[in-house]
Amino acid sequence: MAAFLAVSRTSVWKSIQALQSDGYVIEGSPRLGYRLLIIPDHLYPAEITGNLHTKRIAINREMIHHYHQVESTNTTLKNLADKDAPEGTIVVAEEQIGGRGRQGRFWLSPPGKGIWLSLLLRPPLPPQDTPVFTLLAAAAVAKSLKIILPELAVGIKWPNDLLINKRKVCGILTELKAEAEFLHYLVIGIGINVNFREKDFTPELRKIATSLYLENGRKNVSRQRLTSVLLNELDKSYTELLSDGPRSIIGQWKKDNITLGKKVVVKTVREAFEGKAVDLNEDGSLIVEGKNGIRKHFHAGEVTLVPMNGG
Amino acid sequence: MAAFLAVSRTSVWKSIQALQSDGYVIEGSPRLGYRLLIIPDHLYPAEITGNLHTKRIAINREMIHHYHQVESTNTTLKNLADKDAPEGTIVVAEEQIGGRGRQGRFWLSPPGKGIWLSLLLRPPLPPQDTPVFTLLAAAAVAKSLKIILPELAVGIKWPNDLLINKRKVCGILTELKAEAEFLHYLVIGIGINVNFREKDFTPELRKIATSLYLENGRKNVSRQRLTSVLLNELDKSYTELLSDGPRSIIGQWKKDNITLGKKVVVKTVREAFEGKAVDLNEDGSLIVEGKNGIRKHFHAGEVTLVPMNGG
Repeated sequence: MAAFLAVSRTSVWKSIQALQSDGYVIEGSPRLGYRLLIIPDHLYPAEITGNLHTKRIAINREMIHHYHQVESTNTTLKNLADKDAPEGTIVVAEEQIGGRGRQGRFWLSPPGKGIWLSLLLRPPLPPQDTPVFTLLAAAAVAKSLKIILPELAVGIKWPNDLLINKRKVCGILTELKAEAEFLHYLVIGIGINVNFREKDFTPELRKIATSLYLENGRKNVSRQRLTSVLLNELDKSYTELLSDGPRSIIGQWKKDNITLGKKVVVKTVREAFEGKAVDLNEDGSLIVEGKNGIRKHFHAGEVTLVPMNGG
Repeated sequence: MAAFLAVSRTSVWKSIQALQSDGYVIEGSPRLGYRLLIIPDHLYPAEITGNLHTKRIAINREMIHHYHQVESTNTTLKNLADKDAPEGTIVVAEEQIGGRGRQGRFWLSPPGKGIWLSLLLRPPLPPQDTPVFTLLAAAAVAKSLKIILPELAVGIKWPNDLLINKRKVCGILTELKAEAEFLHYLVIGIGINVNFREKDFTPELRKIATSLYLENGRKNVSRQRLTSVLLNELDKSYTELLSDGPRSIIGQWKKDNITLGKKVVVKTVREAFEGKAVDLNEDGSLIVEGKNGIRKHFHAGEVTLVPMNGG
């Protein structure tokens, strides 16, 4: 191997050792050389980039920042963004110890059990266009799951929760820095519960959350493969959005949503409004028709799907 | 004086020295004590708070951070906001050495010549509501100038430039940190050219900018008084906005605007659109009617007022 690569034996041995400490299982025998037995299911850049055909996102290894443990991938990526990291930079971590969902809620992110990934975008748009990016991310995750696990029924609850059998399998947290009329950057954080067993959830969380493993007949899902597919889908949708505007994103979101046509309660800081979710506006707002027939547009809010027993 | 305040002579002397080094001119005579001759026109908290009757903004001295020199009051205040400074916190500086306008443009901010002020708000609203705050700030500055200098004709160019005789006298830079649906904070930076002489501008800048001094028959304007009046107006408008929504802000903005009814070119990242500015939407967007009668809503853009010679 040393002769083939034109490097010293010591140099090969050092590289092998580094790989082994990263979880690769490599057998060495004195005459025959080395044999790779196990590639660890870690989200190392080298294991992801090979399957990417992206134009903007993670277009080289240096744009993928992998960590074994972070407080939060969004926080790490915002720090990189403040230091002028380029659009398309990714942070992935095996574990988040301070993972966050919307409005500062805790997001359980144990090591190796999920995809904890943040994406940096710098679209030349005003901050008013941000909600469309959240829809884009939700639609891209839904599509990726369909590609990998076509038999699962994944649905999007407005704006960006992904549910399987009424339980949450993915959450998205978009954060931004902007001027009033000009985005500096968007950081889109995506958390997918991939290989959680029941015991990996708290009992309260298990009532409302699930994982791909649990829904997939208790079979592990490759985080590496899902990450590559997801990055490809995100890249495709983002490119479409920049060239054609939000129409195709809105269409894709609608196709996979489980909110429209349903009776809902939307809780905002001002009210709790009950009605039927009738449509998604082009700016990403949810149009809800109240009992009196009045239609309201919601830019923000917490949606609860109301069971429509008998109606 | 030492007997009256029940402190030592040395303590009085030290305080007097501190005031003198802050620019207060104080005469001391061995028998009679001290006499205050000149209060410097610096924006010290003590010189501002006395005239405030605010409910949310700068409600105590600790909420006013005064600096002789900063890079940019917005940058300083964003750092304070990241460390959980409360809503209503203010940063004022005598001089900015890296003052910024929209999209990173330089903003000339020489010592003592202007009001360089940033205000921290934490409204419980989605980031989509940000543009209204920029309009609010522009309308509050316009109203404050009318109170102090009623004879000047101040007009607002959409969204937030204040002009006198077609030259810019004030600019506003609103920056924000947010989730897609939830504002963490807004920092509204206000720069007013108060006592600039001609020579304080560069020749290029003088063509498009002016100062209150130059427009006010070459009489100095008290920065302290203008700052107090401005903070009172900002507080009143913000309180109204929180209780009644954007309607009154929009009305106030319209009253002082010089954009509606005019022929304009709006430059965005995508296009340069020519038409007549026909109205301001409730979300702060400018409605422009093109030659073909089609109306476009602009959330962002650079407006040029087109002279309507003969038309």
